Amino acid sequence: MDLEDTLLMMPGPVPVAPRTLRAMAKPMINHRGAAFSEMYDNCREILADVFNTRNDIFVVSGSGSASMEAAIGCTINKDDKVVAIENGKFGERFKDIAGRYGNVVPLEFEWGAGIDLEVVEEKLSEGAKAITMVHNETSAGILNPAKEVGKLAKKYDALFIMDGVTSIGGDVVKVDEWGVDIAVVGSQKCVAAPPGLSMISVSERAFAVMDDVDQMPYYLDLKAYKKSADKESTQTPYTPAVPLFFALQDALNIVKDEGMDARITRHRTGAEAIRAATAAMGIEMFPTLNENSSYSNTVSAMKAPEDLSSNDIKKDMLERGIVIAGGQARLSGKIFRIGSMGNCTSRDILTTIQALETVLQKRGVVSNYGAGIQAATEVLDTLL
Amino acid sequence: MDLEDTLLMMPGPVPVAPRTLRAMAKPMINHRGAAFSEMYDNCREILADVFNTRNDIFVVSGSGSASMEAAIGCTINKDDKVVAIENGKFGERFKDIAGRYGNVVPLEFEWGAGIDLEVVEEKLSEGAKAITMVHNETSAGILNPAKEVGKLAKKYDALFIMDGVTSIGGDVVKVDEWGVDIAVVGSQKCVAAPPGLSMISVSERAFAVMDDVDQMPYYLDLKAYKKSADKESTQTPYTPAVPLFFALQDALNIVKDEGMDARITRHRTGAEAIRAATAAMGIEMFPTLNENSSYSNTVSAMKAPEDLSSNDIKKDMLERGIVIAGGQARLSGKIFRIGSMGNCTSRDILTTIQALETVLQKRGVVSNYGAGIQAATEVLDTLL
Repeated sequence: MDLEDTLLMMPGPVPVAPRTLRAMAKPMINHRGAAFSEMYDNCREILADVFNTRNDIFVVSGSGSASMEAAIGCTINKDDKVVAIENGKFGERFKDIAGRYGNVVPLEFEWGAGIDLEVVEEKLSEGAKAITMVHNETSAGILNPAKEVGKLAKKYDALFIMDGVTSIGGDVVKVDEWGVDIAVVGSQKCVAAPPGLSMISVSERAFAVMDDVDQMPYYLDLKAYKKSADKESTQTPYTPAVPLFFALQDALNIVKDEGMDARITRHRTGAEAIRAATAAMGIEMFPTLNENSSYSNTVSAMKAPEDLSSNDIKKDMLERGIVIAGGQARLSGKIFRIGSMGNCTSRDILTTIQALETVLQKRGVVSNYGAGIQAATEVLDTLL
Repeated sequence: MDLEDTLLMMPGPVPVAPRTLRAMAKPMINHRGAAFSEMYDNCREILADVFNTRNDIFVVSGSGSASMEAAIGCTINKDDKVVAIENGKFGERFKDIAGRYGNVVPLEFEWGAGIDLEVVEEKLSEGAKAITMVHNETSAGILNPAKEVGKLAKKYDALFIMDGVTSIGGDVVKVDEWGVDIAVVGSQKCVAAPPGLSMISVSERAFAVMDDVDQMPYYLDLKAYKKSADKESTQTPYTPAVPLFFALQDALNIVKDEGMDARITRHRTGAEAIRAATAAMGIEMFPTLNENSSYSNTVSAMKAPEDLSSNDIKKDMLERGIVIAGGQARLSGKIFRIGSMGNCTSRDILTTIQALETVLQKRGVVSNYGAGIQAATEVLDTLL
């Protein structure tokens, strides 16, 4: 099979628009010249709207994990307590990163289960310098209560550090209103650029604590990012991944042209269509919701039907030219995930659902063939 | 002026071959799939030949500074002594990075002056866990004695950490023979890929000390890179910058097709031609050589003529469509630098020399117009 003909329906990397791909094929430019500065400024301006913030925003040449580390490494000393909420693999990652720099207070919930705000408050009330949370837990398809955790962080004077890697640019994120001190997004997710960059917003409150940090990282030093961005001609402190900036600028202009409201509606409707379809096929959603959580609007996680590994579903889908995701780590084989983020169209979703229905029928899971595709169509047609 | 029509003659980013640029415009692939693994393996195989090493080699999605930090951060504890040789801006950077993680022993020489091996030995004899050196000091156009420092490091049992950012892929580098425990190169320099990646080789001796490091960085954790690379299907620990890998693979195959011997000869001849031309124009080289140093074969640093700022030369050259570099930090205005690294051709060098000669004639510096271009031609014609 020609890989270039597969449809990526994973929770990132997502398909990149051909015009965005072509933007990368431009000759290199001097990253200390005016053309780079203008491009960086343009990206930051659109990102401010995507993040809903007046905080500083920087583009880091490194993946989302790099920016997650920047958030922790620039604010946390060895003895500082960091409450690390975990209900999936990326919550675990944030906990691991926090543990390298500070005194981590793990707050683990079952992967895919809604988090209990009372327990969060209890931990915060014992005193913490910061709290980390993954807004949209990519590994489990669950959306966590950022606004509420932001309130609690404020109440107990903790920095709120949020992984918005798979929500920002696709779902509602209000960095300033929610009091998110540091928010992180990856380029290859909802904004539909290629992988390799991450974007990070930093509040004044977060900058204020950095002066007291003993061992700041170097490449991920957010003060250095600020210093370079505040220059008359905006720069990055270290050599930026220029072609990825070409692509990011183009991808962000697609976001701007669509408008964030329309983009969020499209993402929410897409995920709703997937949920309607899988329900019609008798497939259960993986997350266990509570009153403070909801299904992710950018990646849907479903339980593998009994006696079937999700790896088989993934393999069968790949044979039909569609790349979906299985479960990660302890969820391997148990769940399958369909990403519907970025510039994902109704057509992309319908071709995926159609293939999934065929795969599940051939595996003896679906008997009412057509119900899934019909359910998805009904939801998606509200976008017409 | 159309930026895409300028000729980059800086010490990176360098012009990227059109075929390498086009390689980036391919649709995204799943970086956990076989296609990515094959691409990564192919890159690592060619890099082993470029580095002259059997050590592990990893590709980091981040600039050369990121890999320099990985080298230090993964091997150095707070109290560990690191001798940091400095005779230019990048030596200073290595010192700064070392200072964030360990107990740095600065060993500063005048920027652009050859380093004194006796002083190096003296410092090492007092005991150090590691010594850092920039092989080809990009900021000053001087090539430092890697082989000799490697011998001293071995004698005093210190790790030898070498910045080969602008030598590896363009000049002779023998990681194993010289005993370089960690060597780093940037993608946008001699291997002529776009900026955004760096490649790092790590010896067993370097890995051995990592188990005793208290606070390993996360994104730049070399043990994590090794674990992922040793998997049955080679991976990176965090999401890689996929389009830059497409480009790197293509650029490295150009390197392989040319052959490292021919590539080094081309680089050495190119720099020699620039030196012959500037000498003929009465321009002095910036470095002060000693018996252990030589002019860089990838970037030539010249003193600005009396009463002329190098910034004016740079500006005049840009008006003629050629981007050269000025001096950085304390050398700003005082020197100008011409990069001749990557896939730089004789034609590129001759058009640069011709423009420089015109610029300097118009500025009243050159009176024997034509001597420079003739001197360069004579050297370059040895390549025919």
